[in-house]
Amino acid sequence: MLKEVLLGLLAGAAVLTVGILLGHFAIDKGNSAPAWVQDASRDVDENMVERFLAELDNIQIQENLRELTKVPHMATSPGDEATVEFMLKRWQDPKTGLDSAWREDYNVYLSFPNKSNPNKVSVADPSNVVLFMVREREKAYYPEQEDPEVVQPFAAYSPAGNVKGKLVYANQGKISDYELLNGTVDLKGTIAITRYGGEGRSGKAINAAKFGVVGVLVYTDPYDINDGLMSDENETYPHSWYLPPSGVERGSYNIDFGDMLTPYLAAKKDTYRIPKEDIKGIPPIPTQPIGFEDAYRLICELDGDDAPIEWQGAFNCTYKFGGPGFKSTSQFNNCNVHLDIYNREELRNSANVMGVIRGSVEPDRYVIYGNHRDSWVHGAIDPSSGTAVMLEITRVLGKMLKEGKWRPRRSIIFGSWGAEEFGLIGSAEYTEEYFSKLSERAVAYINVDISVFANATLRASSSPATQSVIFTASKQVNAPGTTTSVYDNWIKYYNRTSPSYGIIPNVGYLTGAGSDYAPFMHYLGVTSMDISYYYDRSKTRARIYPAYHTAYDTFDYSSKYIDPGFTSHQAVARTAGNVLVRLADSLLLPFNCSDYAESLEQYHNEAVKNFEAKLMANDISMDSLKNAVEQFRKAATKLNSLIRDSDLANETPLKARRINDQLMLLDRAFLDPLAFPEKYAFRHVIWASRSSRVPTFPGLADAVEKAESTGLKEDWHQAHKHLSILTQAIAGAAHTLDDVI
Amino acid sequence: MLKEVLLGLLAGAAVLTVGILLGHFAIDKGNSAPAWVQDASRDVDENMVERFLAELDNIQIQENLRELTKVPHMATSPGDEATVEFMLKRWQDPKTGLDSAWREDYNVYLSFPNKSNPNKVSVADPSNVVLFMVREREKAYYPEQEDPEVVQPFAAYSPAGNVKGKLVYANQGKISDYELLNGTVDLKGTIAITRYGGEGRSGKAINAAKFGVVGVLVYTDPYDINDGLMSDENETYPHSWYLPPSGVERGSYNIDFGDMLTPYLAAKKDTYRIPKEDIKGIPPIPTQPIGFEDAYRLICELDGDDAPIEWQGAFNCTYKFGGPGFKSTSQFNNCNVHLDIYNREELRNSANVMGVIRGSVEPDRYVIYGNHRDSWVHGAIDPSSGTAVMLEITRVLGKMLKEGKWRPRRSIIFGSWGAEEFGLIGSAEYTEEYFSKLSERAVAYINVDISVFANATLRASSSPATQSVIFTASKQVNAPGTTTSVYDNWIKYYNRTSPSYGIIPNVGYLTGAGSDYAPFMHYLGVTSMDISYYYDRSKTRARIYPAYHTAYDTFDYSSKYIDPGFTSHQAVARTAGNVLVRLADSLLLPFNCSDYAESLEQYHNEAVKNFEAKLMANDISMDSLKNAVEQFRKAATKLNSLIRDSDLANETPLKARRINDQLMLLDRAFLDPLAFPEKYAFRHVIWASRSSRVPTFPGLADAVEKAESTGLKEDWHQAHKHLSILTQAIAGAAHTLDDVI
Repeated sequence: MLKEVLLGLLAGAAVLTVGILLGHFAIDKGNSAPAWVQDASRDVDENMVERFLAELDNIQIQENLRELTKVPHMATSPGDEATVEFMLKRWQDPKTGLDSAWREDYNVYLSFPNKSNPNKVSVADPSNVVLFMVREREKAYYPEQEDPEVVQPFAAYSPAGNVKGKLVYANQGKISDYELLNGTVDLKGTIAITRYGGEGRSGKAINAAKFGVVGVLVYTDPYDINDGLMSDENETYPHSWYLPPSGVERGSYNIDFGDMLTPYLAAKKDTYRIPKEDIKGIPPIPTQPIGFEDAYRLICELDGDDAPIEWQGAFNCTYKFGGPGFKSTSQFNNCNVHLDIYNREELRNSANVMGVIRGSVEPDRYVIYGNHRDSWVHGAIDPSSGTAVMLEITRVLGKMLKEGKWRPRRSIIFGSWGAEEFGLIGSAEYTEEYFSKLSERAVAYINVDISVFANATLRASSSPATQSVIFTASKQVNAPGTTTSVYDNWIKYYNRTSPSYGIIPNVGYLTGAGSDYAPFMHYLGVTSMDISYYYDRSKTRARIYPAYHTAYDTFDYSSKYIDPGFTSHQAVARTAGNVLVRLADSLLLPFNCSDYAESLEQYHNEAVKNFEAKLMANDISMDSLKNAVEQFRKAATKLNSLIRDSDLANETPLKARRINDQLMLLDRAFLDPLAFPEKYAFRHVIWASRSSRVPTFPGLADAVEKAESTGLKEDWHQAHKHLSILTQAIAGAAHTLDDVI
Repeated sequence: MLKEVLLGLLAGAAVLTVGILLGHFAIDKGNSAPAWVQDASRDVDENMVERFLAELDNIQIQENLRELTKVPHMATSPGDEATVEFMLKRWQDPKTGLDSAWREDYNVYLSFPNKSNPNKVSVADPSNVVLFMVREREKAYYPEQEDPEVVQPFAAYSPAGNVKGKLVYANQGKISDYELLNGTVDLKGTIAITRYGGEGRSGKAINAAKFGVVGVLVYTDPYDINDGLMSDENETYPHSWYLPPSGVERGSYNIDFGDMLTPYLAAKKDTYRIPKEDIKGIPPIPTQPIGFEDAYRLICELDGDDAPIEWQGAFNCTYKFGGPGFKSTSQFNNCNVHLDIYNREELRNSANVMGVIRGSVEPDRYVIYGNHRDSWVHGAIDPSSGTAVMLEITRVLGKMLKEGKWRPRRSIIFGSWGAEEFGLIGSAEYTEEYFSKLSERAVAYINVDISVFANATLRASSSPATQSVIFTASKQVNAPGTTTSVYDNWIKYYNRTSPSYGIIPNVGYLTGAGSDYAPFMHYLGVTSMDISYYYDRSKTRARIYPAYHTAYDTFDYSSKYIDPGFTSHQAVARTAGNVLVRLADSLLLPFNCSDYAESLEQYHNEAVKNFEAKLMANDISMDSLKNAVEQFRKAATKLNSLIRDSDLANETPLKARRINDQLMLLDRAFLDPLAFPEKYAFRHVIWASRSSRVPTFPGLADAVEKAESTGLKEDWHQAHKHLSILTQAIAGAAHTLDDVI
C-alpha cells in the first residue's frame, strides 16, 4: 500500500510537473512582452558590421570608378545626365538597390565658356598684332584629353569681357599682395597674373579690382603643386602624378555657396531670383586660369623690380613685379596682355539623385551620406573617387537589405549632389528645400567627396561629437596592405595630445565650405564629418593632388598614381561605411559630448590667451564665457554619467530616444541665424569660417582683431556683442545637455 | 478496476490541471512585459480630469486675487517682490506645491517717472503763468488709490524733456490723422493731444514727430471706453465698471518686445547692451497720458476748424483741430501747453518665477503655462486675474501630485513672467536664454493673462493646431451659472462657418504681440494659445475693460463689476486647466493638422482674391503657393489617416513619439528668421504681425500693398520674394507632415 501510495504520489508529482511545464511554456501569457519591445532596443550587430566590412570590395570600387569616369561629367552636361541614370540604375537595382531612389532637379545659375567662341588670352603689340596665344586646351597624352566634352579651362562666374593691359605679377592676389605691388607699380589698367593659393579664387579678382586692375590670370606654380618639377618629358604626368605644363585648375570663382540667385530659397522654377547685379562674391573683372607652361612665358618676360622672396616660385627666372609690362629686351616689349572672355551664365536644371533605406525602429531619424556627382572634366578623383566608394557601400547594404538580412534602426538617406563644383549648389538647395524636416530629424551627415587624395593615411574633419565613432570605426579597419589599423596608421601622420586621452589622431574641424558638408554643418547645424585618405606631408608640399580640376584627373591617373589597386578607396569605404552603420544602428547614438567640451575648452583657452587682455582693456569681461564653458563641461559630464548608469536596452525606449535627441540636437543648439549677417548661411557660432589665424571662436576672434585694427568704439561694441552671442550659444547648448527638467 | 482507472485518470487530470494553472499563473515568465510597457502607453485619465475640474474652486481664486492685489506691484517694485515671494511660497508648498520652483532674474531696461519730481502737464500763458494743471494722481475713492506705491500715470520710455507749444487735436495719432491735420494747421512746434485706439501707443508720438510736433498727450475718450458716460457722481466707478474721469491708462510706449538693450540676448549682467540712441520704436518726443476729465478741459477750448465726424468723441462740445491753440474766447487764449516730463530709464532686476512638474513618461516634452506677474498698479484684472487662476490650477495639480495620485506624462513648466507691461520682457528673455532647449522640447504654450475681461463668453486665440483641444476642453465645462457648456455659450457670441465643421466658435489667430504668447508663438514657433473670458459685444463698445492700467483695477472693482462670485474665473481655470492636462497627458498630442490646413486655405483664398490679379500683372505667378497649400492639405490628411489606422497604445511608443514630434514641430516649420528683418523677433511666416487689413499671409500682403502704392520694380521684387518665402515655408511644413521617409 505504501508502495502504491508512493507510486501514486510520484505519478501525481510527475503529472503535476508536466502540467506546470505545459502551463508555463505552452500557453501564451496575455501580458507577455509585445514583439516591438525587443525591436525597440535593437543595437548595432557587430557580426553584421564584420560581414559588411568584409564585403566592401576594392575591385568593385575600381569598376564603379571606371564607369563613372568614362566621359567628362560637368554639371548639367550629357555626361552628368549619364551619371544620374547610372546612379538611379544602381540604387533601383532589385537585388542590390535601396528601398527607393529618385532625382530632384533645381533650376540653378551656372557659368560656362562659349564652345563656339572660346576664351582667349594673348599677348599683342600696341597695334594689336598677336605675338603669343595662351593654350585653349590642355595637351592630350591620352584620348581622354581629346574628348570634345572636355570643357575649356575657365573661371566660372568670371564676367565676359575684352580687356587688355600691361601685365603685373601679383603673387597670390591677396589684398596685402596688391598693396605691396601698388607701392611701386601703378596698377590702374593693368592685367595681374596670380598664382593659386593663399586667397580664394574669386578673392584674387575682387581684390585686384579695388586697385584698378582690369583683368586677372591665375595659374598653378610648379612650386606649389609639383614640388618644383616642370617637364612632361619625364617628370610630370603621364610619368608621375605631377601636373603637366599645360594643365589648368578650373574652378568656381565665388565666395558664398548655394545657387546665387535664390539665397535661402530652393531654386525652383517660380522661385524669386535676385537681380544678377546684386550677386556678391564673384569677380568684377574678366578672369581666366592658365597653365604654368604659359605663365612661365609671361612671368619670366616681366620687367620691373624683383618681387620679394616669398613671391618667387619654381620657374628658373626671377619673378618681377612687371614694369608694368614686359622687359624692353623681351619680344613682348611694349605688349599688352589681352583677355577675351566669353563666359555665359545660364539657368540649367541640375539633379540631385536621392536614395533611401527606411529605418525599422526610428524611421524619422536620418543618417545622411553624400557626395557630389559633378566633376569639371572626368573627375576620377574629384568627385568620382567618393561616388565609387558610395556606390560600393550602397551595393553591399542594398544586398543585405534585399536579402532580408538587415534593415537599419534609423533611416539612411544617400545624396548624390549636383553642381557642387559651382558652389555646393545641389546640397545647398536640398537643405533649403527640406530645412524643417532635416533640422528636426537629421542625426548626422557623412561627406566623402574626394575619397583618396593620396594613399598615406586617413584624414577626418568633423564636429567634435563624432570623434569617438570615427576612432571606433577606424580601429576596426586595416590600413591598406598592412595589418596595422587605419587608426594606428593615422596617429603616425597626424596626431595631437588630448587632455582626456593623451596622443590621438588629430581630427580637424569643419570651419570652411570646401565641400557639401557646409550646408549641413553650417546652415542646418547637423553634426557632420568629412572623411578621406590623404598625403604623407613629409613627401610633398603639393597644395592638393596635382591633377585637381584638370583634364588629367582620369581613371588612368587615379589607378596609376593615386591608389593602385584601390585599397585606399576600400579603406575609406570601410571606415566611412562603419561610421554610417554605427550611426544608423546604435541604440545610443555614438556621439560624445565630453569631446565637444574639450574642443570648446581648447578654443576658450586660445581666446583667453589671445584676447582677454585686449578685451579687459576695453572693459569687456570674459568671465561669462568661462562660466558657460564650465557649465557645458559639467552638463556633458552629467549626461555621460546618466548614460553610464542606464541600462538602455532594458529601459523604456523613450529614454534612449530622449538622450539621443540631446545628442542629435547638440550641434543645432549652436546655431544663431543672426550672428554672421555678412556670411551667407553660416549659422554655427563655433565652426563658422574665420579670418583670424587664432584657432578659436570665429565671431569673437574676427571682431576683436577688427576692433584692434580700427580702434573704433563701435567695433569694440561688436566684439562685446560677439562675446555675448557666443556665451549665450554655449550656455544654451549646455542647457540642452543638462537634466531635461 | 475500471472505476479505479477512471478515478486515477480523473485524479491525474485534476493534478495536471492544477499543474497547468500553477505553471501558467504562479510562475513569472521571463519574457513578460516590462513595467514600462504599460507606462509608455499612458493616456489622459478622464476620471482624473473630472476630479481636477471639480476641485478648481472659485473662492480659492477669489482669495488668491485678494492676496495678489493687496498692494501695487509694478515690475521690480517692493510689491512685485512680495508677489515673487508669494508665488514661490505657493509653488514650494509641501502639500500643494510643484516638484520645484525658483526665481530667475534679468537685468532689464525699464522706465519710471521720478517720484520726487513728478511729470507735469500744464496750460500757461505766454509769460509762463500757469492757468491750469493736469492732475498728477487719479482721484481716490478708496484707500487703494491713496497707496504711495501707486505710480503716477506716465508713458514708459517717453523721453524726459520740457516742451511747450500750442495744442492741436490729432484724433488717434495715426499717420493719416496727422496728414489730415497738417493740411490746415502748421504742426511745427505744437503739442498734440490724441486719444487711445487706432494706433499703437508709441506710434502716436513717432508719427507726431515726423510733422514737427514737440510733445504728445494721450487720453481715453469716454466714447471709446465708457459708452459715452462721464460722471463719477453716478455713472462711473465706484458706481459701475466705467472709468472715472481722472482715470489714466498707463502703458509702455514701445513697438518691439523684449529688453530693448539686449536684442536676441538674455539680459544678464555682462551681456552686451546696444547704445541707448540705437533703440527703435519709442517716442522721440515727450509724451504723457492724462485722464479724460483734463482732456475735456483742453479739447473743448480748442480753436480752429471742426474736426471730421469720425474724430468726434463723447465730450459735449465739437472737437476742433486747434488754431493751433485755444479759442480767443477761452481763458486759455494764447496759452501754451507745457509738458515737463522727468521719466528716467534704469537697469533693474526683474524676476520670472518658474515652477515645474516633471513628466513621468516623456520628461523632455514641456507643456508651458504662463502669465505675467507685474501690474501697473494693483492689477486685479491685468494680470492678477490670470495669476489667481494659475495659482488655483497649480494648487489642485500640486495636491494630486503630492498625494501621489497623479503625475503628468510630459513635464509642465509654469512661468510667472516679470516686466510684461514694459514689453513682454520676462517671457522674451526666457525664450532667448533657453532658445535651443525650448525649441527642441516645448509642446505648447498656454497664456492666460487677463483671465476675465468680462463675464459673457470664452475667447481664445491660438495656432489653428489647438482649436480642437480648446473645443474639447470647453465642452466639458459649464458656463458660469448655467448648465450650458462654455462651448455652447461661446458659439452664441463668436462663431464662424468652417468648411469642415459648419458653425463653430471663432478662434482667433495670434498675429500680434499683446501678451507673453508672442515670444513663444513668433520667436520660438511654439504652438500657443491665449484664453480668457470676454465681452458681450452687443452690450458695450468699450475698447477694453474701463479700469485697464489705471488705479481702479482693484479687487473691489473686479469682484463688483467684472466677475462677482469669480465663476468666470473658475470657468477659465477649468477650460485652460483642461487644455493643459490634455496636452500634458495625452498619448497622442491633441493637435489637428487638418485644422491648420483649413486656416492656410482660408488665408490662401484671401490672398488669391486680393492679390493674384495684381501679381499676375507683374508676371508673378501664385501657382506654386497654391501647390504648396494643396500639398499641405494632402500631407495633413495622410497623417490623420495614419493616426486613425494606428493603435498607438499597443504599438511601439516610438510611433506615438514620432507622430507627436510631427505635430509638436508643425508650427516650428513655419519659422524663417530672415523673413521679416524689420520686425523684431517675428519669425513665424504665417502669423507675424501685419499692416494690411486683408486677413492673409502677412509678408505677402504687406509687400504687395507696398508695391502697389509705390509702383517700384524693386518693391514688386520684394512681393515676389515674400511669395517664395511663404511658399517654401508651407511646402517645408507639408514635408514634415508627410511620410517620414
